[in-house]
Amino acid sequence: MEDINNRFYRAFQGLSIGEMDKIWEHGDGVVCIHPGWDLITGWLAIRESWITIFQNTARVKFLITNTKIQIFGDIAVVVCLENVESTVVGGYAIKSGILATNLFKKVKSEWLMIHHHGSIVTDYMPPNIST
Amino acid sequence: MEDINNRFYRAFQGLSIGEMDKIWEHGDGVVCIHPGWDLITGWLAIRESWITIFQNTARVKFLITNTKIQIFGDIAVVVCLENVESTVVGGYAIKSGILATNLFKKVKSEWLMIHHHGSIVTDYMPPNIST
Repeated sequence: MEDINNRFYRAFQGLSIGEMDKIWEHGDGVVCIHPGWDLITGWLAIRESWITIFQNTARVKFLITNTKIQIFGDIAVVVCLENVESTVVGGYAIKSGILATNLFKKVKSEWLMIHHHGSIVTDYMPPNIST
Repeated sequence: MEDINNRFYRAFQGLSIGEMDKIWEHGDGVVCIHPGWDLITGWLAIRESWITIFQNTARVKFLITNTKIQIFGDIAVVVCLENVESTVVGGYAIKSGILATNLFKKVKSEWLMIHHHGSIVTDYMPPNIST
């Protein structure tokens, strides 16, 4: 399950909408809350939000720590800390800590993302590790 | 399920640790992310965090909107917008919008909270309704 979660961050880091397409369930019930953003529901709207983020991001790197996984039948609940170093188009690199709740649902033999909720940690100290 | 979710906000509004005790599962696996805070895991630490919040809150009122419920076997995923009017001890009332992911687990015949993730909506406009 950690692999599945990491695949999401590789898609994000790769700014790849094609990879995001593979990771998410394409339904009306899926939910995404980007840090500070309003609620987004349904795959089409969520997909648009990723396109917007990818278009405005020059570069992003993730170091995922504190991953905590719980599986309840066909639902996996993953909580993790995203240690992010990101550069918006035309901007500087900033480091931020984002806590994420990621939910995956087992569809046939595949775990698909149905929920991503990310939120900024106010008093964030980046780990002393090169990402 | 909306009742169960609302009971959580009634406990919060009542600043009642006794009610919170009834709502949460008392295990090591439960997770709480208060807006801007670091990750808290395990019921004892989460309970402490509620006591801290309650001690520092003079008054809090919730209007819960946009509630979205999905049930997958013994897990319920609730997403909602907390329209909050809160006053810290010695402070002014402030209005804020907090998006929450709340997870409940069916234990015997009872739904218990196992996960609460709240995060501030940056461009929040309070609804034009008296709470």
